[in-house]
Amino acid sequence: MIQSVAFIGLGAMGYRMAAHLPKHFDTVYVWNRNFEKAKQHSIEYGTQAVDLKQAVQADIIFSCLPTSKDVENLIAGLELKAGSIWVDCTSGVPESAKQLAEQLKLQLVSFLDAPVSGQTIGAENATLTVMIGGDETAFNQALPAIQAFGKLIKHVGASGAGFAVKAVNNMLLAVNLWSVAEGFTTLKAHGVDLTEALDCINASSGKSGVTENVLSQRILNRSFPLTFALPLLAKDTGIALNLAQDVKLPTPILSLTQNLIQTANLTAEADADFSAAVKLYESWSKITIS
Amino acid sequence: MIQSVAFIGLGAMGYRMAAHLPKHFDTVYVWNRNFEKAKQHSIEYGTQAVDLKQAVQADIIFSCLPTSKDVENLIAGLELKAGSIWVDCTSGVPESAKQLAEQLKLQLVSFLDAPVSGQTIGAENATLTVMIGGDETAFNQALPAIQAFGKLIKHVGASGAGFAVKAVNNMLLAVNLWSVAEGFTTLKAHGVDLTEALDCINASSGKSGVTENVLSQRILNRSFPLTFALPLLAKDTGIALNLAQDVKLPTPILSLTQNLIQTANLTAEADADFSAAVKLYESWSKITIS
Amino acid sequence: MIQSVAFIGLGAMGYRMAAHLPKHFDTVYVWNRNFEKAKQHSIEYGTQAVDLKQAVQADIIFSCLPTSKDVENLIAGLELKAGSIWVDCTSGVPESAKQLAEQLKLQLVSFLDAPVSGQTIGAENATLTVMIGGDETAFNQALPAIQAFGKLIKHVGASGAGFAVKAVNNMLLAVNLWSVAEGFTTLKAHGVDLTEALDCINASSGKSGVTENVLSQRILNRSFPLTFALPLLAKDTGIALNLAQDVKLPTPILSLTQNLIQTANLTAEADADFSAAVKLYESWSKITIS
Amino acid sequence: MIQSVAFIGLGAMGYRMAAHLPKHFDTVYVWNRNFEKAKQHSIEYGTQAVDLKQAVQADIIFSCLPTSKDVENLIAGLELKAGSIWVDCTSGVPESAKQLAEQLKLQLVSFLDAPVSGQTIGAENATLTVMIGGDETAFNQALPAIQAFGKLIKHVGASGAGFAVKAVNNMLLAVNLWSVAEGFTTLKAHGVDLTEALDCINASSGKSGVTENVLSQRILNRSFPLTFALPLLAKDTGIALNLAQDVKLPTPILSLTQNLIQTANLTAEADADFSAAVKLYESWSKITIS
Repeated sequence: MIQSVAFIGLGAMGYRMAAHLPKHFDTVYVWNRNFEKAKQHSIEYGTQAVDLKQAVQADIIFSCLPTSKDVENLIAGLELKAGSIWVDCTSGVPESAKQLAEQLKLQLVSFLDAPVSGQTIGAENATLTVMIGGDETAFNQALPAIQAFGKLIKHVGASGAGFAVKAVNNMLLAVNLWSVAEGFTTLKAHGVDLTEALDCINASSGKSGVTENVLSQRILNRSFPLTFALPLLAKDTGIALNLAQDVKLPTPILSLTQNLIQTANLTAEADADFSAAVKLYESWSKITIS
Repeated sequence: MIQSVAFIGLGAMGYRMAAHLPKHFDTVYVWNRNFEKAKQHSIEYGTQAVDLKQAVQADIIFSCLPTSKDVENLIAGLELKAGSIWVDCTSGVPESAKQLAEQLKLQLVSFLDAPVSGQTIGAENATLTVMIGGDETAFNQALPAIQAFGKLIKHVGASGAGFAVKAVNNMLLAVNLWSVAEGFTTLKAHGVDLTEALDCINASSGKSGVTENVLSQRILNRSFPLTFALPLLAKDTGIALNLAQDVKLPTPILSLTQNLIQTANLTAEADADFSAAVKLYESWSKITIS
Repeated sequence: MIQSVAFIGLGAMGYRMAAHLPKHFDTVYVWNRNFEKAKQHSIEYGTQAVDLKQAVQADIIFSCLPTSKDVENLIAGLELKAGSIWVDCTSGVPESAKQLAEQLKLQLVSFLDAPVSGQTIGAENATLTVMIGGDETAFNQALPAIQAFGKLIKHVGASGAGFAVKAVNNMLLAVNLWSVAEGFTTLKAHGVDLTEALDCINASSGKSGVTENVLSQRILNRSFPLTFALPLLAKDTGIALNLAQDVKLPTPILSLTQNLIQTANLTAEADADFSAAVKLYESWSKITIS
Repeated sequence: MIQSVAFIGLGAMGYRMAAHLPKHFDTVYVWNRNFEKAKQHSIEYGTQAVDLKQAVQADIIFSCLPTSKDVENLIAGLELKAGSIWVDCTSGVPESAKQLAEQLKLQLVSFLDAPVSGQTIGAENATLTVMIGGDETAFNQALPAIQAFGKLIKHVGASGAGFAVKAVNNMLLAVNLWSVAEGFTTLKAHGVDLTEALDCINASSGKSGVTENVLSQRILNRSFPLTFALPLLAKDTGIALNLAQDVKLPTPILSLTQNLIQTANLTAEADADFSAAVKLYESWSKITIS
């Protein structure tokens, strides 16, 4: 039985994910580097803002940080409680998950890599998808806590598998983002009505998350709202590519996509949403996707 | 008022599409190069199997052939009826549509490029998507006939626009087909459970028509049913690429995809379904996507 | 026996090439759209500036224009002398050469596609390489005239073959230009001394015309002298790519290179030398190749 | 003053390189894992076949092994002599060179990464090119020994710089190998005479080490002699790509080339020469480059 849970890292996602925990558990610790946010969370949702040392004494410890490096640094100095489970919702590096799982095992702690998808709206509505790698027993034990914010929750394999699936998902997002930019620019250059074309493609075999959501909500309306930063997408494509290279797989399309997204990131303005990667292509074609 | 309609080209798609016409029109001519098929259609659905000369005297003439070249050859020798509308449902070449529209105009006939998507099941259920280029008045006049088999029917621009949208749609299908092969092979090489991973991605931003339909229905189950031939996909990616080159657009991802699909086509066995393009990648990685 | 020769198109190359003809032939006509240049050439080198109609009455007619389209337009209205040979030194389109050869045959005139390499210095010193496609008898007849400015003169095949070799040569130039930019930028980012590295590579298997000439003479010294315009290189890569597509060959590296050079051309400043294509890459990497 | 030198690793290159040392130095130790080869060398060239422990007591220790990993493993257990210099002629990993240099510094030993180019013929004639990274004083001290087999000997930067230049050189070799295959196949498909075309290109801007040497000596004559194994070229392209990724540089052409060479390596028969990478392309195009 889970007596206590903790949530570390109250960013745009984490803040909303942690908000659901008090509905299911009596003791919910929260911690954040900028501690004001933790205090605000406790006031808003009835969680307990405690110091890190205390937070990690919970039965289930969630973390949601920008990168695996941040998680490694955080865990480095901590003493954990034997029998607890660390559920890391960062979009992280599979190799890091394997090492952290090995390392925490020595303290008799389980580590699950449990990245989420569904964006802030999914975090708010507790409808996130959670893809989880690691020990299956620990997965089953942590499941009730994960269900507080997750809807589709899958155990996809051993340590690192969760991060791997997330990285490949985001790589496919990147592939579609860029190829839709090329395709729709081509259509526009030929005088095609993009809105009508989009309707057709969304009812056809070429559809994707990008055509169904990103194109109309972020690009065609020129809003590019910053909800998932371009540097993070660039990082994720790099993680996916490294996965392929680790096993010596040739991946021509993923490699080229990673190069293009990396170029978009290098040439983007500050605080660019991932969808703004298409602006690099627009600077080449001199055609605005709208 | 449409008095008579004709359907030319009773292949896997056309046969099913033409079957809906008698529900809405009294006079429905059908014609097919292999004329036995036309006779069979007339028996099965109450259409009239007539010679080509008579068929093209209908108010609305549908055609559905393998390539634009076939349509050009067919039309070359024909005398058409002034005021009639030719609706070509082939997945054809935009430039050819422009030329045919010009050419038929001399006979006071309108030409609409009206490719469809939705596969044989969509043809059967009259739920096809139809993307149409050409004169808007002609589009409105032909609409009642198109509605016999189409559900989402869109006028996307001038002559050629319909073919262009179809080509870009199929290019995006090809992009996803190949990149999903790379991505899922990478996951499998790392021991990830592909079925669970697929569920997660289908609930996430990396989803596409390929992850939602093709992967599970054709590839993971190793069925590769021949419903849309690989040479036709290769042709369509070539059409899309030519569109980009016509307007001097750089399209790195579309170009590389076209090269890969072309290679898959060159090295495929006979009668390969489009989804079997992944077998080329499997021959490189020595990993089966299953 | 060749009695008279003509040279049409006195650009940077043609002006210097035509200058050698009076050393070998008594009657040398020259013509140029901007006719002042032809008059100047006649004063400087003892050629005869004549109108186009007269020029094309020579036994051997050379042309050297920007594109095949220009040659086609020029030839369109002309009446030629039976038995004469048209030697086109333009970097042109193989398909156009085939058509012009067919067309001129009707006037009993031979057409040779005879593009040159060696730049203005080679034109000046009569050391050009000439790669020739077309009828072999015509080749042998024209050879004495071609030798006026050519050193290595090769019959490489039927009509179009000369243009094809030139296009592939320039494509390989483009491949090296871009990949050397990527490679040397990588070295610079790691603190390697580029001048010493260049010496090593020029003595090794990775050398190319770009490492031997272009890098030191145009890029490292930041001179980018305009002797071969970037739009022409972009055009030539397009010709090479079309050649591959005509025979349905997948060419992943050539395709990607063409896309990158096309992008460089779209984003370049006016009057950019081909070597300035690397500036696009520098805008991505934020590293200057120097 | 150098009193003694050693050579470790008597493969196809090392055996020939070490053969020049006795002409310049009285004490020349040789060692090889298969010790018979060392004994044979001592008989043939007057070197001393000694055990590894003794060999590494030389003032200058050369090594030439398949990979950096082999060098690391070799060095791991050794006690070296303060003041000696280790000159590693392996085509190795820059990062490994940096670490070995740091590590050997603790024993007051200098480590130079000093890969060579020029193949077995260059090793035999003492005309190798040597590109060297590491401490400049150590470079100057080791120079007299390196001159025994090297002709062009360059200090290209700090530790790792030599390996970096070699990796980029071999990547450029790979780029040319593959793009020449695409280009010449295209020419052949159009009926061009490849031998004549090659002569033209070798006198033009598209030439490279591949057109000048590899194409005629290994591919057109279908000999593919095993002098530089394809897996090693695949490894080197991987090293070059990692260099670019370390500094977050997009390198679309190098990435795609690495993917293609990796694919060629995965699908090649055993003991394939690097030039046999073109056989993968031939299996796609169904055209033999000859």
